[in-house]
Amino acid sequence: MRGLMTDFAATKAMFDLPQGVLYLDGNSLGPLPRAAAARVQQAVTDEWGQLLITGWNKAGWMAQPSELGDRIGRLIGAEPGHVVTGDTLSIKVYQAVASALELTPGRKVVLSDNGNFPTDLYMVEGLLRSMGPDYELRVVAPEAVEAAITDEIAVLMLTEVDYRTGRKHDMAALTARAHAAGALTVWDLAHSAGALPVDLAGCDADFAVGCTYKYLNGGPGAPAFIYVAPRHADQVRPALSGWLGHQAPFAFDLDYRPGAGIERMRVGTPPVIQMAALSAALDVWDMADMADVRAKSIELTELFIAGVEAACPDLELASPRDPAQRGSQVSFRFAEGYAAMQALIARGVIGDFRAPDIMRFGFTPLFIDAGDVKAAVAIIADVMQNRLWDNPEYKTRARVT
Amino acid sequence: MRGLMTDFAATKAMFDLPQGVLYLDGNSLGPLPRAAAARVQQAVTDEWGQLLITGWNKAGWMAQPSELGDRIGRLIGAEPGHVVTGDTLSIKVYQAVASALELTPGRKVVLSDNGNFPTDLYMVEGLLRSMGPDYELRVVAPEAVEAAITDEIAVLMLTEVDYRTGRKHDMAALTARAHAAGALTVWDLAHSAGALPVDLAGCDADFAVGCTYKYLNGGPGAPAFIYVAPRHADQVRPALSGWLGHQAPFAFDLDYRPGAGIERMRVGTPPVIQMAALSAALDVWDMADMADVRAKSIELTELFIAGVEAACPDLELASPRDPAQRGSQVSFRFAEGYAAMQALIARGVIGDFRAPDIMRFGFTPLFIDAGDVKAAVAIIADVMQNRLWDNPEYKTRARVT
Repeated sequence: MRGLMTDFAATKAMFDLPQGVLYLDGNSLGPLPRAAAARVQQAVTDEWGQLLITGWNKAGWMAQPSELGDRIGRLIGAEPGHVVTGDTLSIKVYQAVASALELTPGRKVVLSDNGNFPTDLYMVEGLLRSMGPDYELRVVAPEAVEAAITDEIAVLMLTEVDYRTGRKHDMAALTARAHAAGALTVWDLAHSAGALPVDLAGCDADFAVGCTYKYLNGGPGAPAFIYVAPRHADQVRPALSGWLGHQAPFAFDLDYRPGAGIERMRVGTPPVIQMAALSAALDVWDMADMADVRAKSIELTELFIAGVEAACPDLELASPRDPAQRGSQVSFRFAEGYAAMQALIARGVIGDFRAPDIMRFGFTPLFIDAGDVKAAVAIIADVMQNRLWDNPEYKTRARVT
Repeated sequence: MRGLMTDFAATKAMFDLPQGVLYLDGNSLGPLPRAAAARVQQAVTDEWGQLLITGWNKAGWMAQPSELGDRIGRLIGAEPGHVVTGDTLSIKVYQAVASALELTPGRKVVLSDNGNFPTDLYMVEGLLRSMGPDYELRVVAPEAVEAAITDEIAVLMLTEVDYRTGRKHDMAALTARAHAAGALTVWDLAHSAGALPVDLAGCDADFAVGCTYKYLNGGPGAPAFIYVAPRHADQVRPALSGWLGHQAPFAFDLDYRPGAGIERMRVGTPPVIQMAALSAALDVWDMADMADVRAKSIELTELFIAGVEAACPDLELASPRDPAQRGSQVSFRFAEGYAAMQALIARGVIGDFRAPDIMRFGFTPLFIDAGDVKAAVAIIADVMQNRLWDNPEYKTRARVT
């Protein structure tokens, strides 16, 4: 491994983690960057409170969706000026697929896999229903995707990293295969952005979407992002054609004229207070090199897998064993996984559970180090070896997240 | 006038307005409620920071969209349990119109007026384009709407109060007319919610949408809301079918099954930090009676019109003269309106400008009183009588909001 340039001790100090918590759930909701609280307070008190309506200009609120987009773009290999933030990931999936379908006239099939996060499938199901009975969402097993890319396919929509197992698709190869078949691609980077290097431009990706509240640490309900390749950016006519994507929103024209490039993917009024938190979160990312993050992530996940497998024979690895085949999370299957996760949370190891039997742990080098991993492994070993999960209280808890 | 029960001096004290500002733009972006800063800080530091992922349950984040929806519902005459917050108003317009179209099979025309806020028209234009060439958005003059409601119309989509002039449609009469013709209604309450009493249930409205950053003071980028009448709530299948509108989001089913009633109008992860600010803003509204707010609003707008007309013959009233025909804003036409508004802002009277020539002033009794109105009139008189707007600096400023 080459020498790391990222100072992970410094980035760790930029987070405010509760005492006694080993937070292995930054892949679900990233923790609070210390600077975010002050940055949000500034947005609320100084900007909203004092500038009032003039904040749109004077505090730069109107420009933030694109500025934040560019800062995210650096982490995912996007060309500058081709990422914008806003809305939720579900909405951005809808926008991307609707746009991709418009660029592939005559084709009616969206291909995805059954490892995709359900909302992506739901949103496309709703989109295609409104487009008429000729359209089809075709869902195959992840390993069957490549063979299913035929010349019927309009859009290949995949989440690069599986939310349950961490299994990683080959973005470059599948994009090339899709293009060879005349299809376009929509990549969901929910479990990729900030988790591993992504090279959208290098892979020739067409559209990408993602959220910012996981690895990017933008806070609960932080806005999503969307990428449109330069060759498409001035071609697509957005289905969700909101006023802030208009060429001149404040001309209040009655007819929609799409804005320049990625700006047309904006829809409504951006969430200024959430953007303030996200901005502080991206300050931490400005100190990180994605290659370093990936190297450290692999070191941590390998340490975790070795430790858990040595101590807990009842836990079956659900993630690919080859680190090159997985994202920055590790999942184990265990029939009583829900109760076991509750037992871990009660002991300060926070991961999460995904039905039916997945115990999921995220590795986020910006604030998790090898010492944390070893401490977490010791607690997992205690819970499993002493059957601490076998407690009615852990089994009956309401399942919300 | 009956005796007011709302203590407007008390509500005014709950806002933090900058020194020397007369804020007549609460119809565009409401000011900061004092309690919002602390409430947001709590959401960031105590909830996100300390509870991390468990905030979704322990801090009640997941339930907030419906809880906030119900608090808004009280102000707009909605039945309890039939309003939910989320997304932006543009997205909610799309959801509402798409749902209404599904409930009117065989009909292909959405009727609106050219006084509607442009994003409503843009969003429907995009929706109909994706539905195919048979669908039509028909836009007529506001006064021609009633006659245009024929049995071709699937959906009547109107903004109750015109964003430029404050002219108010008759929601009850137009809804009845639409129903008689077999159409459904989508009412945009952007300039109604918190501005005047709305009686959605009494008017038999079908769908309504609105934003919370104007009269409701939810903060820049605060989430929107949507209402679905009880008779439709379990019938509609949302076009924007996101996972948080699923019957069981955390079952991660591959197929979408709509949640119960209004819950199905949720889409993606809600903006927790924005919701905290909105929650504090609604605490002020909990102290207000909408009939009182309306009575005080009329008193203030009448005082304003009389004062401005007496002092400024160059300003032409663009709002209806009859207070029953307008919302809670007053607009004047003036060819140099942009420069005049800049001159006012420089002197602490903040209103806004809407092209081509509208100077717009909002009246928000929760924090504006008769003394403020008289002070604003005196400054407007000074600017107009002494042609203080005739200054190159005011004419060349970039127009963003």
